[in-house]
Amino acid sequence: MKVGFIGLGNMGLPMALNLHKAGFETYGKNRSEGKEKKFAEQGGNIGLSISELAAQMDVVITCLPMPADVEGVYTGADGLLASAKKGLILIDCSTVSPGLNQQLFAQAEQAGVSFLDAPVSGGTTGAEAGTLSIMVGGKEEVFNKVKPVLEAMGKNITFVGPSGSGSAAKLINQLMVGIHTQAVSEAYALSKSFGLDSDMLFNILTNSFAQSRIMDRHYPDFIAKESYEPGFALKLLTKDMNLVAGMAEECKVNLTAGSSVRELLNRAVADGYGDLDMSGAYKYQLANDEKQK
Amino acid sequence: MKVGFIGLGNMGLPMALNLHKAGFETYGKNRSEGKEKKFAEQGGNIGLSISELAAQMDVVITCLPMPADVEGVYTGADGLLASAKKGLILIDCSTVSPGLNQQLFAQAEQAGVSFLDAPVSGGTTGAEAGTLSIMVGGKEEVFNKVKPVLEAMGKNITFVGPSGSGSAAKLINQLMVGIHTQAVSEAYALSKSFGLDSDMLFNILTNSFAQSRIMDRHYPDFIAKESYEPGFALKLLTKDMNLVAGMAEECKVNLTAGSSVRELLNRAVADGYGDLDMSGAYKYQLANDEKQK
Repeated sequence: MKVGFIGLGNMGLPMALNLHKAGFETYGKNRSEGKEKKFAEQGGNIGLSISELAAQMDVVITCLPMPADVEGVYTGADGLLASAKKGLILIDCSTVSPGLNQQLFAQAEQAGVSFLDAPVSGGTTGAEAGTLSIMVGGKEEVFNKVKPVLEAMGKNITFVGPSGSGSAAKLINQLMVGIHTQAVSEAYALSKSFGLDSDMLFNILTNSFAQSRIMDRHYPDFIAKESYEPGFALKLLTKDMNLVAGMAEECKVNLTAGSSVRELLNRAVADGYGDLDMSGAYKYQLANDEKQK
Repeated sequence: MKVGFIGLGNMGLPMALNLHKAGFETYGKNRSEGKEKKFAEQGGNIGLSISELAAQMDVVITCLPMPADVEGVYTGADGLLASAKKGLILIDCSTVSPGLNQQLFAQAEQAGVSFLDAPVSGGTTGAEAGTLSIMVGGKEEVFNKVKPVLEAMGKNITFVGPSGSGSAAKLINQLMVGIHTQAVSEAYALSKSFGLDSDMLFNILTNSFAQSRIMDRHYPDFIAKESYEPGFALKLLTKDMNLVAGMAEECKVNLTAGSSVRELLNRAVADGYGDLDMSGAYKYQLANDEKQK
């Protein structure tokens, strides 16, 4: 099976490499050449344009940072849908709105091809280890056809339901990730200000009902080391929280904690914290508290 | 060692029984007689007043719902401090403010007795199994003397620091519990409204970065069963969030998510949801969303 992979970023590159290692004839494509070279150095194929990938591959996977990037790659004049060969299966692993998924799904149907939304969770560590959680929306028979492809990249692979369902599950996941991130910021800022030992606090909290996988990620590798190299950038989490807000509005669900965190993260990005790892929300918390003192 | 235990509630009764089972000569005391009878039926001693406990025991533990209850039992005319024999060690396992702990610590010193703040985490399950997390503030040599007593009730026992430190750690724990509780409410409300299968969503989230011990508690045993018998009552979590707000104000720390959740929980209690388990915040979420639809 020939697989194209568009978007060789922090997530996409290790995902594409895992496809290559699993024996799929994998073609990588990225806006910047540097990432393509890295992929080629480790045995991946490069050199095909987006239209060529659409015309020659059996499956094309996209893994892109922003919804606008996804729209461009799919619906642009030189995009995937314009050149897609009959029977092509398109899989979008980006985090976008269920609405955009449903729109691409409908356009793909019209073009005689298939589309799945298949956003992932698990970060760069999960992408490298091939242990991502993958949440899939679309037609189940299409999902079954590409299951081996997904299994090369992830471990907990769930067919969630109709088009957009994968993204709905992913956005709900991100809502919790965002809220839990801010919970960590507030908890450790309070601990620091009161004068507790943060390592001791972490040991207490991770063994109690305060435990979250986000705290287990953010504290030891980022906050304790005062090092906020992403990982997953704060600006991407902020983008996701904005997508959740749109989904919640359509679903008529009040996001109390979600809204307060979303507003804060948007301010953090505006204040220049967006390129930090998402755990850097703690650094923003400390800076804001400092102003108050 | 003779141990008095004041407050045989959902948490206190199993804790006192574990002391009895561990071989301590344990005397239970509760405002309502029914709980004392339960304790006596399982072999515990009863019948001593608060002053008698203060005069005759080596250690007296308190585990009470509200800060005002704690203040009354310690500083009232018939309270512990008025009748305390020299060398008595007082341990408060209630969740109160670090400020109240420090005040009782100072009064205890004046009366020639010792005081530790030792709030617990782990819920009724942890109390019954004797696996509570216990966070202790006060003098370390006093902590060392009563460590066997604490070990009969808990597993992760940490000496955190000077008087009030145990409560500071506990309140930070509760801040996260409160925020995580609301994260669960918003996530599952969104899932329900979008039309996802909640059991499937739980399986995805608990295996991804959305996981929290609070979600692992709230979903399977409460939300999935639509049963909100406490457990830990929403009004108590609300009380704790109010205590955290006071601590944060003193520490000059901005609680963004914490404040939004605190306000919501106070409204939930005012609207009659306080006696539900804390996971019942989800039921309140659904009721509020319904109004908007």
